[in-house]
Amino acid sequence: MINIGVIGYGYWGPNLVRNFSEIPGATVKTVSDFKPELLAKVQARYPKINLTTDCRDIFTDPNIDAVAIATPVSTHFDLALAALQAGKHVLVEKPMTVSSEQAMRLIDEAKKRNLVLMVDHTFVYTSAVRKMRDLVVTKTLGDIYYYDSVRVNLGLFQHDVNVIWDLAVHDLSIMNYVLPSQPYAVSATGMSHVPGEPENIAYLTLFFEGNLMAHVHVNWLAPVKVRRTLIGGSQKMIVFDDLEPSEKLKVYDKGITLNGNKEESIYKMLIGYRTGDMWAPHLEMTEALRIEGLHFIDCIKTGTSPITDGEAGLQIVRILEAATQSMKKQGRLVELDLMKVAA
Amino acid sequence: MINIGVIGYGYWGPNLVRNFSEIPGATVKTVSDFKPELLAKVQARYPKINLTTDCRDIFTDPNIDAVAIATPVSTHFDLALAALQAGKHVLVEKPMTVSSEQAMRLIDEAKKRNLVLMVDHTFVYTSAVRKMRDLVVTKTLGDIYYYDSVRVNLGLFQHDVNVIWDLAVHDLSIMNYVLPSQPYAVSATGMSHVPGEPENIAYLTLFFEGNLMAHVHVNWLAPVKVRRTLIGGSQKMIVFDDLEPSEKLKVYDKGITLNGNKEESIYKMLIGYRTGDMWAPHLEMTEALRIEGLHFIDCIKTGTSPITDGEAGLQIVRILEAATQSMKKQGRLVELDLMKVAA
Amino acid sequence: MINIGVIGYGYWGPNLVRNFSEIPGATVKTVSDFKPELLAKVQARYPKINLTTDCRDIFTDPNIDAVAIATPVSTHFDLALAALQAGKHVLVEKPMTVSSEQAMRLIDEAKKRNLVLMVDHTFVYTSAVRKMRDLVVTKTLGDIYYYDSVRVNLGLFQHDVNVIWDLAVHDLSIMNYVLPSQPYAVSATGMSHVPGEPENIAYLTLFFEGNLMAHVHVNWLAPVKVRRTLIGGSQKMIVFDDLEPSEKLKVYDKGITLNGNKEESIYKMLIGYRTGDMWAPHLEMTEALRIEGLHFIDCIKTGTSPITDGEAGLQIVRILEAATQSMKKQGRLVELDLMKVAA
Amino acid sequence: MINIGVIGYGYWGPNLVRNFSEIPGATVKTVSDFKPELLAKVQARYPKINLTTDCRDIFTDPNIDAVAIATPVSTHFDLALAALQAGKHVLVEKPMTVSSEQAMRLIDEAKKRNLVLMVDHTFVYTSAVRKMRDLVVTKTLGDIYYYDSVRVNLGLFQHDVNVIWDLAVHDLSIMNYVLPSQPYAVSATGMSHVPGEPENIAYLTLFFEGNLMAHVHVNWLAPVKVRRTLIGGSQKMIVFDDLEPSEKLKVYDKGITLNGNKEESIYKMLIGYRTGDMWAPHLEMTEALRIEGLHFIDCIKTGTSPITDGEAGLQIVRILEAATQSMKKQGRLVELDLMKVAA
Repeated sequence: MINIGVIGYGYWGPNLVRNFSEIPGATVKTVSDFKPELLAKVQARYPKINLTTDCRDIFTDPNIDAVAIATPVSTHFDLALAALQAGKHVLVEKPMTVSSEQAMRLIDEAKKRNLVLMVDHTFVYTSAVRKMRDLVVTKTLGDIYYYDSVRVNLGLFQHDVNVIWDLAVHDLSIMNYVLPSQPYAVSATGMSHVPGEPENIAYLTLFFEGNLMAHVHVNWLAPVKVRRTLIGGSQKMIVFDDLEPSEKLKVYDKGITLNGNKEESIYKMLIGYRTGDMWAPHLEMTEALRIEGLHFIDCIKTGTSPITDGEAGLQIVRILEAATQSMKKQGRLVELDLMKVAA
Repeated sequence: MINIGVIGYGYWGPNLVRNFSEIPGATVKTVSDFKPELLAKVQARYPKINLTTDCRDIFTDPNIDAVAIATPVSTHFDLALAALQAGKHVLVEKPMTVSSEQAMRLIDEAKKRNLVLMVDHTFVYTSAVRKMRDLVVTKTLGDIYYYDSVRVNLGLFQHDVNVIWDLAVHDLSIMNYVLPSQPYAVSATGMSHVPGEPENIAYLTLFFEGNLMAHVHVNWLAPVKVRRTLIGGSQKMIVFDDLEPSEKLKVYDKGITLNGNKEESIYKMLIGYRTGDMWAPHLEMTEALRIEGLHFIDCIKTGTSPITDGEAGLQIVRILEAATQSMKKQGRLVELDLMKVAA
Repeated sequence: MINIGVIGYGYWGPNLVRNFSEIPGATVKTVSDFKPELLAKVQARYPKINLTTDCRDIFTDPNIDAVAIATPVSTHFDLALAALQAGKHVLVEKPMTVSSEQAMRLIDEAKKRNLVLMVDHTFVYTSAVRKMRDLVVTKTLGDIYYYDSVRVNLGLFQHDVNVIWDLAVHDLSIMNYVLPSQPYAVSATGMSHVPGEPENIAYLTLFFEGNLMAHVHVNWLAPVKVRRTLIGGSQKMIVFDDLEPSEKLKVYDKGITLNGNKEESIYKMLIGYRTGDMWAPHLEMTEALRIEGLHFIDCIKTGTSPITDGEAGLQIVRILEAATQSMKKQGRLVELDLMKVAA
Repeated sequence: MINIGVIGYGYWGPNLVRNFSEIPGATVKTVSDFKPELLAKVQARYPKINLTTDCRDIFTDPNIDAVAIATPVSTHFDLALAALQAGKHVLVEKPMTVSSEQAMRLIDEAKKRNLVLMVDHTFVYTSAVRKMRDLVVTKTLGDIYYYDSVRVNLGLFQHDVNVIWDLAVHDLSIMNYVLPSQPYAVSATGMSHVPGEPENIAYLTLFFEGNLMAHVHVNWLAPVKVRRTLIGGSQKMIVFDDLEPSEKLKVYDKGITLNGNKEESIYKMLIGYRTGDMWAPHLEMTEALRIEGLHFIDCIKTGTSPITDGEAGLQIVRILEAATQSMKKQGRLVELDLMKVAA
């Protein structure tokens, strides 16, 4: 039995506690939050869980094996480091940290101590995203040409991070899992419409080796909610609409055909358009966080590295940093490898 | 009666001929196209129209008052210049020319000869776009925060111009008409997925003075067709979906409210979210090209300048040039006023 | 403080307990269910609530003022009657009873004892339905011409009642609240596709005095979920799509105009088509069951009759009976007043 | 070469003329219409076609092989009979005639003279409808349980026929082609909202042997346009939405499974729900009327009977008659075989 301590019972913490409470082989032993009224809610629903306003009680409890951290991003580094230093496995909310330097520091600490460090990129564990990765890995889509994602709605404006750190982090973690390679540079633009506040609208272009590119559009100030991703491949193309109650994923047998026979012109490629069936694979309904929790427990037990490990978290943080930097320079390209900090 | 010569009877020419044939006060006297099979189609439908494979017959006909040019963009400058020099008023397809230098040369020529020079930014004459402009001009939306447009589908790949010149020209002409100010710089990214061919996917960010920005996403290689524009304002926001058979335009009484009372924190602006009714104004069904044709004839008769005059055409060409330049440099900002060429 | 006993903690009971727990002036004192595992769930979430497997404990508790009954429909009559006879106010799930005779008996009992008898027609308390009623009552729609509702999905097949009693009961309760008059007869058709089981697909036409009609289509065996109601009026028309996350209600300024000037023909009415704006009023998000719960408590305190009182419940049961009867006779008209049973 | 005469150049005639003009092996020789202004349109587009205001010129022309009739339904019988008696093959608009007696008379006449008699049930020749038939015929859907169709919009009110004859005729012709058997009875309800005019809203239930039923909802007075058909089968189910620009047809691998193992109850069938992939087959874009025209020419040349022959036309007219009769009696069942008139 893996005993878990959960730090933070605000927006996401209740989901962690609920799922870990129902996962075989895991128990939520303690929940900490500095707001007593939130702990009262834990008490009402889970009378057997220990409560504390001081998260250090979790670190010092020798019976706790793992810590799940669901607090504001600015606190992730200190809490995760303390947990690792106390010998606990760690599951930390996304974004992993506020800087790639911090992320690397955590990766080192976990490696040194042989502990599992996992980042809660929840979308990676949804059946839609896993199906998309399957379709890419099995070359069903052919060569991947582009990844285009839109995540816009009205609210919730954050005060401490810009919209990229809040919303694009989802798209980047999905992209990072689904695409076959890593971007080498980013160009981003964005703007704040509230004086003194971080950017509430942003556009990111990500460049990859070869002829693959990605783009993410995020916006806290949109009249309608949109959660839509297009993936273009040489053989097939995907539309992933997360707001569809069913048929979230549509696979189109569409594309272009290039004809080497250049009768019409020696200068021009003959391009044909191919339109076939559309197919919406059935997706399992299991809650992503349950699958993720089971994976965390399994990694702890077997000593394996999770799919969304510290490296995956670091890659996302690096893109977020670079995008923020590019945005300040109105789209100026920022290369991702230049940002590497010596480990 | 204004006699019109139409050059080019390919994709768009038939629409020009049909509309000018039905507009009171105008007559299509001659159509030229270098493909006889296309002229045969004119003959079948409009037996009274003169036909020629040599467009110079139009320029030399003293009874022709105005010329409508619907040929590939690379030929616009030469044809329009010849027409103006022959003393004809000119309506030219968009994009106006392949360079801002050419566009300025045409503007000069028209001004010198006191002729009407109009660019066929058809969307500007649709009831949806005119309604959007009304809502902006009357401050119904409040201050404008952003303009975001997506225009993607499968095909038709062009060989001589990239996707920006082919598709974004529509969005930029709408934007130029609807927004209260002009952009000062552009950052663009894009890619070609067919070796040796121009970019088939592109993203443009446009920067304006103040806190207004615009973004356009265009793509010839998308599995689905999307024609959707969001306009965010401080009071209201718009969704314009041109594929909706009815209710193309939806006006949302949504937004944020900023609270000066900073009780919770002296560092943070209190942001509230406001959600009210949605309203889809009824839009007239008159074909845009008919309204545009009537406007062209009226401008000729009254000697006034059209809404989509040479200057409007030039502004769009300037943005297209700058975007193409920025795209080569992976998003590097290109300022629009630096591109000005001495007149 | 009104003390409430809830009977039945299956599908709907938890919603009743949750809402009454949060309503000021009400307390859930006891929950009964004959399945101990369901009572264990109550215990985990609401440690202070008394539990019993014998609902008679609720009837005999002098401190309980009101009883909410969320059990299968076949048990409604006995439980409600016992509760009323024990002097308790009653809120009973829909359909109220399995026969109009039973419904009338409960109405009599409640009247005799001066107790509140309310039927849980939850939809009546949603903001969308209340807005529809407003639009009808204020004559915004003009004269009402028709009410057309579709409620189809895959599952859940019931074994004890046909699809009309399970699904159409929702539409009928909405219709009953929104329309200005009562139907006088029903014609229904339907079929079972599972041997020995009740009808899983059905169509009901309801006739009203004047030129108003209603139709309800219900189906447990549909590939997609549809929840859509059209209301046609002489001035305006409504589309109510309950699956829309926002803009559930759309009001169309559309209709026909009749022209008395019969120039074209002395035999024909000249009909014109009028198309104006569409408007989607903002709807409050308060949970319907909370509003309904507050109304129940208020009716108990003030001794007033609820909107969805026993009479409303009886009207629906009468239509359900008549529809089932008509369905057996493949659409033969069944008049509703003929079914009246002497009180 | 088959020479064709077209009678009527109002709403549908131009489509017939255009298609027959482009079909190899066919020529439109003459068009008749009693309105000279409509004939002027023919002249402008097709200068070689003969024109007449007297349709008898078509019957008496020995070089005309076939006649296409696109006039109001009340004139179909007289015109088709005259054409057949003049030895011409006939393609007649739907509904075939105003009575089944007339339809039978035409069938007899065509049979006696060995002429092709075809009814223009255009939808039968669309790729979507042919695909649906394939899916039924190949038992891909399993046993067919129901056919449910909605065809509503605002306008165009007819003065001479009710909404069933105008709109349901489409659904019935599709149903007749797609379903494996014929209905034996109909129950219909409907209403007129314009004094003195025919019913503008109607609902038809059709009964078949076995556990198959069909329902059609038609309405000239709806705020939105809907063209949607559901077909439920024991293996798969279809949604056909004719307003979708692409993916008009969606095949759902959904249904119920019946479990013989009656552990839970000896009285109840155990019903499970099965949800699998959705698939939208690619549909060819060829215009239905072109396919239909080719079929007509082919039937004439080979002496075979068309898919939508006189018998098919008669079956639809019989249902329209019966539905109208049932509607007058507020849903009273009208059996279709009782209506048979001795040939």
